[in-house]
Amino acid sequence: MIDFQSTKKIEAFLADAGAGDRPTPYLVLDMESVAVRFERMRDALPISDFYYAVKANPGAPVLRRLVGLGAGFDVASIPEIEACLAAGAAPNKLSYGNTIKKETDIAQARRLGVDLFAFDSAAELAKIAKLAPGAKVFCRIAQDNEGARWPLAGKFGCSEVEAAELLLSASSQGLQGTGLSFHVGSQQLDSARWSDALHAAGRVSTRLRAQGRTIEWLNMGGGFPVEYRDPVSGLDEIATVIEKGVSSAFGASAPRLAFEPGRIVVAEAGIIRSTVVLTADRDTNGGGRWVYLDIGRFSGLAETLDEAICYRLRTNKDGSAKLISKIAGPTCDGQDILYERRHYKLPADLQAGDIVDIFASGAYTTSYSTVGFNGFAPLVTYYI
Amino acid sequence: MIDFQSTKKIEAFLADAGAGDRPTPYLVLDMESVAVRFERMRDALPISDFYYAVKANPGAPVLRRLVGLGAGFDVASIPEIEACLAAGAAPNKLSYGNTIKKETDIAQARRLGVDLFAFDSAAELAKIAKLAPGAKVFCRIAQDNEGARWPLAGKFGCSEVEAAELLLSASSQGLQGTGLSFHVGSQQLDSARWSDALHAAGRVSTRLRAQGRTIEWLNMGGGFPVEYRDPVSGLDEIATVIEKGVSSAFGASAPRLAFEPGRIVVAEAGIIRSTVVLTADRDTNGGGRWVYLDIGRFSGLAETLDEAICYRLRTNKDGSAKLISKIAGPTCDGQDILYERRHYKLPADLQAGDIVDIFASGAYTTSYSTVGFNGFAPLVTYYI
Repeated sequence: MIDFQSTKKIEAFLADAGAGDRPTPYLVLDMESVAVRFERMRDALPISDFYYAVKANPGAPVLRRLVGLGAGFDVASIPEIEACLAAGAAPNKLSYGNTIKKETDIAQARRLGVDLFAFDSAAELAKIAKLAPGAKVFCRIAQDNEGARWPLAGKFGCSEVEAAELLLSASSQGLQGTGLSFHVGSQQLDSARWSDALHAAGRVSTRLRAQGRTIEWLNMGGGFPVEYRDPVSGLDEIATVIEKGVSSAFGASAPRLAFEPGRIVVAEAGIIRSTVVLTADRDTNGGGRWVYLDIGRFSGLAETLDEAICYRLRTNKDGSAKLISKIAGPTCDGQDILYERRHYKLPADLQAGDIVDIFASGAYTTSYSTVGFNGFAPLVTYYI
Repeated sequence: MIDFQSTKKIEAFLADAGAGDRPTPYLVLDMESVAVRFERMRDALPISDFYYAVKANPGAPVLRRLVGLGAGFDVASIPEIEACLAAGAAPNKLSYGNTIKKETDIAQARRLGVDLFAFDSAAELAKIAKLAPGAKVFCRIAQDNEGARWPLAGKFGCSEVEAAELLLSASSQGLQGTGLSFHVGSQQLDSARWSDALHAAGRVSTRLRAQGRTIEWLNMGGGFPVEYRDPVSGLDEIATVIEKGVSSAFGASAPRLAFEPGRIVVAEAGIIRSTVVLTADRDTNGGGRWVYLDIGRFSGLAETLDEAICYRLRTNKDGSAKLISKIAGPTCDGQDILYERRHYKLPADLQAGDIVDIFASGAYTTSYSTVGFNGFAPLVTYYI
């Protein structure tokens, strides 16, 4: 059975004659699927500029493919900038979206040709003014992330009042302060959050208009949800929320819209193949059946923290009767547990050596791997 | 001021003429201090065998130094075994302590000369019997980890009844089933836990004696606490608890005692030097002052998860008036927050470019680094 989150190419790769010789765990990523997903999203949304969030999967083949499709890139550090340039991206397609940057990194980004920088504090704005004079800047406002499976609130963003003040200050410091941004949180399940955020941005715009200034560019961050174990809102539904929100919040003076897709571009283009290392029926710690895989929290599945992201799993024994199972990784760390409370059911006859495929795992897996906790190597990727 | 958790060598390294040219963050580890701490611990405890927990810091200079001191090594994977052998360890000084092992890894360990294996389930025992016939094995019993700042319970350990059954079964499968182990949890603050665990081990021993068998070897895991921000029980206090516990639980038939120290050997021998990237007074998300460092959850400080490990910090402005500060790392990830609720106080005049030294950070930092989340490189170590 080929799942809608897999592709013929991935299934052929997993089934080919050499599959048994490839050590697990590994991620296989279908580059055609990355391209299709990027284009589908770009077609569906009423947004002009797309900056792929490199952190979601910084693999060179991914970057090269997206360069070919005309994507821009949201980068968090100098190594990410260098990776995009090496993949052929023009510097003016890069947005240095991290609001926490060293002075030396701002200067280096400028030398590399980057001209678009995020900030959310007076101190960061002053650094950019000093080291990248004349650059375009955008201010990130804080946004309630309720509904997001991987919230990004707390450490980021200023208030609407402060945003307006800082954008005015940006101009007086010689910068082009015409942009605003927000982020509703990663894997956002409540589409109403986009509406709330657009209205907050609209209020900042109103404040600035009273000073004779305009928001020309609104970066809506990322957050579009991917279907893991449970259904999520589709692109069309969120597109409608965004259209209505922009119209209601900005009226006739709508800014140009930008978006930083990451998860939605790469997650469903990839599958991690893992192997069962051990199964045990425990009579301790509440008991129950445990299934231990050769991948865990520290070698790629970081987003299972607090059981936040619930991947769909497929085994080579899916026809068998199933048992509720606790699922853990292979390290000696007590934190290396994937799911204890989510009532995952796995085949009762699953045992060491069996296969567990982890769906929609192309995003936020490889780059989150540790360099070698417990000696386990970082996650390997096959780009096909 | 030289702190008791620093050394003259570390302070000289941090102050030398080239210090300003070394990019931060980095860990500096004093190898003499590693040796002193290992020997002090070995002298203080009524324990015969010490297996350094390689996962705490797998750096080759650390392993070589401990080989020279006669240490054994607790290893979790084939790469850790290979690292110990490369550092000069004899295979019979290695304990393959991971209870979750692939069949291929057991076979490979055996080929490399390893002869001591942990298990905590029937399926794992069967794998060892098949692939390392005749090996010495020890069974891990589950243990309440209350009091531990980094608990290891839940995914590990069987009951006392099952342990006795499995050890009997080990012999009938041709293995030398004469060992038992437990782990009270890492950074254990309550020394009574060792007493509880010893009594649990004693009860397993009693069960086995009724079958004419003896526990010859008891591996007490690790868990000895390091002084981070708050005081902890000293070695002497815990040594006394252990002596009393062994006497009370085993009487005249005490087994040979082993220990797997990790944190207590390397933590206090190292300091991470980091730089402030940004400070901001926030008027959102509850407000307050935020200090952003160039190291965070994903580049070495994984144990700040849930604010579990509270490192002591030193800045270059410690004489100044202080403010309660929230402390975060440099990535775009909302999880990359070190301390929000722990009421850390940092100098009010701390700003971008200032120094923050993180004490007792030689354990569970480098190997927990991601390969490059957000493009940030893994933590660099200077061994001095």
